[in-house]
Amino acid sequence: KNHFKIAVLPGDGIGPEVVHESIKILDAIAECFGYQFEFNYGLIGAEAIYKTGHPLPDETLEICKKSDAVLFGAIGDPTFDNNPDAKVRPEQGLLKLRKELGLFANIRPLKTYSSLIEKSPLKKEIIEGTDIQIFRELVSGIYFGEKFTDEDGQYAYDNCKYTREEIIPIVHMAFQEAQKRRKKLTLIDKANVLDTSRLWRKICKEIAAEYPDVTLDFMFVDNAAMQLILNPKQFDVIVTENMFGDIISDEASVIGGSIGLLPSASIGEKNALFEPIHGSYPQAKGKGIANPVASILSTAMMLDYLHLGHAANKLREAVEHAIENKYVTIDLHADQHYSTSEVGSFIADYI
Amino acid sequence: KNHFKIAVLPGDGIGPEVVHESIKILDAIAECFGYQFEFNYGLIGAEAIYKTGHPLPDETLEICKKSDAVLFGAIGDPTFDNNPDAKVRPEQGLLKLRKELGLFANIRPLKTYSSLIEKSPLKKEIIEGTDIQIFRELVSGIYFGEKFTDEDGQYAYDNCKYTREEIIPIVHMAFQEAQKRRKKLTLIDKANVLDTSRLWRKICKEIAAEYPDVTLDFMFVDNAAMQLILNPKQFDVIVTENMFGDIISDEASVIGGSIGLLPSASIGEKNALFEPIHGSYPQAKGKGIANPVASILSTAMMLDYLHLGHAANKLREAVEHAIENKYVTIDLHADQHYSTSEVGSFIADYI
Ligand SMILES: CC(C)[C@H](C(=O)O)[C@@H](O)C(=O)O
Ligand SMILES: CC(C)[C@H](C(=O)O)[C@@H](O)C(=O)O
Repeated sequence: KNHFKIAVLPGDGIGPEVVHESIKILDAIAECFGYQFEFNYGLIGAEAIYKTGHPLPDETLEICKKSDAVLFGAIGDPTFDNNPDAKVRPEQGLLKLRKELGLFANIRPLKTYSSLIEKSPLKKEIIEGTDIQIFRELVSGIYFGEKFTDEDGQYAYDNCKYTREEIIPIVHMAFQEAQKRRKKLTLIDKANVLDTSRLWRKICKEIAAEYPDVTLDFMFVDNAAMQLILNPKQFDVIVTENMFGDIISDEASVIGGSIGLLPSASIGEKNALFEPIHGSYPQAKGKGIANPVASILSTAMMLDYLHLGHAANKLREAVEHAIENKYVTIDLHADQHYSTSEVGSFIADYI
Repeated sequence: KNHFKIAVLPGDGIGPEVVHESIKILDAIAECFGYQFEFNYGLIGAEAIYKTGHPLPDETLEICKKSDAVLFGAIGDPTFDNNPDAKVRPEQGLLKLRKELGLFANIRPLKTYSSLIEKSPLKKEIIEGTDIQIFRELVSGIYFGEKFTDEDGQYAYDNCKYTREEIIPIVHMAFQEAQKRRKKLTLIDKANVLDTSRLWRKICKEIAAEYPDVTLDFMFVDNAAMQLILNPKQFDVIVTENMFGDIISDEASVIGGSIGLLPSASIGEKNALFEPIHGSYPQAKGKGIANPVASILSTAMMLDYLHLGHAANKLREAVEHAIENKYVTIDLHADQHYSTSEVGSFIADYI
């Protein structure tokens, strides 16, 4: 296969700026390796609400469904965050997209770059050598359970539900990844309090029998929040439910000191979406200071997913070259730095 | 008032060892200030299950209800954690106790000790000067919502519910504390996804009108998990719901590098419970290495609650004296250290 349909959803905040650099890179890769990428743009998030009234217009969903992969920028806008009564919110667009595309597994690799280790808020001896892969369940749990607020605003609830079928696939994925790595899988849960956590624990134990070479262990989410700071090297692969995954993976993302570098993939049966983990970062919008590397490395994950591993590797090599040569944005080196677009072009030129 | 009834619930793991030191201290305080503390012991947790079959025997509950304050050790036992089918669990004892006593506010002060700053996993310039007070709602939310697992283990759910009445009192408490401090209150929630979070946000905004001198801001829980590591000094008082509070307050507890020092208070209308935050730490049980200071500083919080502020201050002075003179357990200074009981006696003798 030589021709790929890529849905491009720039979204809010710095999303458009960083996605623009990924497109630049894909153009370079197309030229260099002789592929064709067909880009189909779609609206999502606050951007889509302003223009169409809906956070995920049908047209965008169609574009995504027909694509080989989705390249996603970011979502979120402070105007909506500060209005608890807003009926339509940007995040609904992303949540609906995840659900409609069945993107059940959000995968976040966390690696440290030795040249950037001093950027970490943690002491060097604690963070050095950390290499974690997080699998977060993405289309169930409290995010998608029944929600209710009574008319007078007297009470509200959010239901967290999990079925066996929702848990099994991501647990297998996580075990398989652990097999390729250091063979340790940690389930993060709150099994001393929650029924859903006990179901996760039970299913993990059952499935463990199929992966005898992998050591499975369990950790309560409150303890995990501590252990990530005290001793992140103890983790290899982590698997967890949606809400705990949201919190724990964001916590994990900052311990390396370079959140602007971290990519993610959200994988389903038929579709996949690739997204930098840094979010919309509205304060930086339009300033040309956003780090495009997380989006670019998400693009590398996309290339892997499309079975273009050699292009993905070339791209990662180019990124490492840029980082080593300190061709980076302001978040990484305050005194010597380049704009979003300069960094993107440097990486594209290398390819 | 001169005579106080103290319910003593040593519980599991290192609980009994550290509570023992608190009793030693209270004896010294009684002698020095002329008070009488009447100690009534109760079983709770795994200890209680082994002896009575119940994690919170009625007798224990009675003792607590009749007391002026409850001194609590720790709860939790790995035997139960690793058995998802266990019908009775130690944690149920603590949860039931919180509910029965109506302990709606869990308060955790997080201070850094300059002599211990190098113990922090964070870089000195990030952690130094951090001073946070966390208010966690403790008797509602997903912990106490309806739970269900079907007979075949095909699905499970946990419901997270909040009523206006459950949110209002702790929000007032947090605002009042902020008034006494740096006048900043941060609500941690997930209002971009959860109905319950939007209810919290709405109520906080309403109540804010009564505290015009306090600045209220909002932070998503995933972002809070990052900000606590990147810039903990930005926080003054935090208020949050039960589950987020569990995770965030444990994360906060390790950034100072001395979790063995951190106390907590759980306050209700009529009752109050004081507990070190370190938990049962089963690996250390019976070894005489547990740090008694968290339990001792919880005792100081209890003295404050009993309006014995001068005794509380004396006790805190004694603790600081011990820390400054490096009269501490192994977790704080590996080369020069003392046993649990030696540290307790040193502090008692100072008083
Ligand atoms: C924007 C928000 C709904 C989303 C989430 O909580 O899942 C984000 O925080 C993420 O982690 O992708
Ligand atoms: C033991 C457990 C049920 C408890 C909780 O989650 O509330 C503990 O982690 C705590 O924070 O006091």
